[in-house]
Amino acid sequence: MQKVETTSHIVDPFHTDYKRQLSWETLGVDLLNAAENHASKRGFGMKDVNNVNYTWVLARLVVELDITPVVYQNYHIETWVDKVYSLFTNRNYAIKGDNGVVFGYARSIWSTINYETRKPVDLIEFHGKQFEDYCAPELPCPISPYSRIKPLVGADMVKCHKVTYSDIDMNGHVNSMKYLLHLRDIFSLDHYRQQRLRRVELQYQKESYYGQWLQFFMKTEGENIYDVEICRTDNQTDEKGEVCVRARLIFE
Amino acid sequence: MQKVETTSHIVDPFHTDYKRQLSWETLGVDLLNAAENHASKRGFGMKDVNNVNYTWVLARLVVELDITPVVYQNYHIETWVDKVYSLFTNRNYAIKGDNGVVFGYARSIWSTINYETRKPVDLIEFHGKQFEDYCAPELPCPISPYSRIKPLVGADMVKCHKVTYSDIDMNGHVNSMKYLLHLRDIFSLDHYRQQRLRRVELQYQKESYYGQWLQFFMKTEGENIYDVEICRTDNQTDEKGEVCVRARLIFE
Repeated sequence: MQKVETTSHIVDPFHTDYKRQLSWETLGVDLLNAAENHASKRGFGMKDVNNVNYTWVLARLVVELDITPVVYQNYHIETWVDKVYSLFTNRNYAIKGDNGVVFGYARSIWSTINYETRKPVDLIEFHGKQFEDYCAPELPCPISPYSRIKPLVGADMVKCHKVTYSDIDMNGHVNSMKYLLHLRDIFSLDHYRQQRLRRVELQYQKESYYGQWLQFFMKTEGENIYDVEICRTDNQTDEKGEVCVRARLIFE
Repeated sequence: MQKVETTSHIVDPFHTDYKRQLSWETLGVDLLNAAENHASKRGFGMKDVNNVNYTWVLARLVVELDITPVVYQNYHIETWVDKVYSLFTNRNYAIKGDNGVVFGYARSIWSTINYETRKPVDLIEFHGKQFEDYCAPELPCPISPYSRIKPLVGADMVKCHKVTYSDIDMNGHVNSMKYLLHLRDIFSLDHYRQQRLRRVELQYQKESYYGQWLQFFMKTEGENIYDVEICRTDNQTDEKGEVCVRARLIFE
């Protein structure tokens, strides 16, 4: 079986923002589903691991778009496994328009965890040697790897959010793309009028659950670069909770 | 051209809720996009009316699901125009699984408004006589029509929400399905553990915009029936604002 899987979409009018550009959360969920589509066709998808009480979780994601597709444009998501380590696997993406036009790329790191203990397993041991056969490190993904986003000191809490029903996905925790939605909503409509989001980095450190509070601490790191820490607490408080997600958003 | 248009989907794992059931907002957005797909293929879609500074807006929607599709199931949305009045048109939907299994139905009412004045136009005058040729009142949509949801008296404000960037769609107002998302988030995860949402009715009365506050007033109308008024205000206040949406949610 080939190493790359492609899923194609059209930018539907109601999957866009007010500027008629594809919403990043829609793209984000498409990336997750593209991963699942690629993996399940090769025998190591959610379905396969769920059956034995394990699940895939996203540890890191970086998406960089030179061009944000607009309403009625087609976009094609190519995805492949880049490398496999013992507890992690790198999965890359190319996001293209018709005729091979490149919109952008994405890099992600995943692990398979036990549904009960939430501990990661050794991927080769768990999925078998053939998992490695799908690795395609020769395929290009020409965007910078993950930054080292440092712990924020003296950052302001710019919002807090109580986790709701719709934040929770089939893994029983806040969905990775819901963090992205809440992150993007920190910025005003006016901000988006003047700037385009070019790159998002997400480092998932801890899970958060229904009924917890998410605190968003933000600091500017140079022009148009925003670092955010999302922390979880059991009650609404000004005291900083445990860091769940470190994120960087770069506008232009 | 045939009167019915069908769009097919699979319930992707990341378009489900924590119970692995298709999320109602995903379905809702699919219904909007199915309408657009049907209309644009027949020359009266968003694209066509946007070009001359008009847009389609949803006035009412009722969705009733006997079966909520679950992860990896296929679902097919059939849509057609039921009737055309001067300022409104009825569009119906059937939501089916493979082999014609019926999951549910939906009814909606739409109007075309001027983008600047927000006033509705005469549909036959605007879209031309051929608009009527697509009407298929003979096709069944066996769910009860819209209830008369009465203004709520003495209802409690159960939450309020400041409209964010992601709430706003290409029409420059809060997207109809975002109201549904915020409505569903009134209920706890525990509520969804015990009950299944069977029917949603939405009456859109006024638009709301970026930066406004939405107040949610709720009252139980008999067992498992919840009526909600969503009101808009310019500032955060306990005083009741203008009603934007009246909604009814029926669980079982």
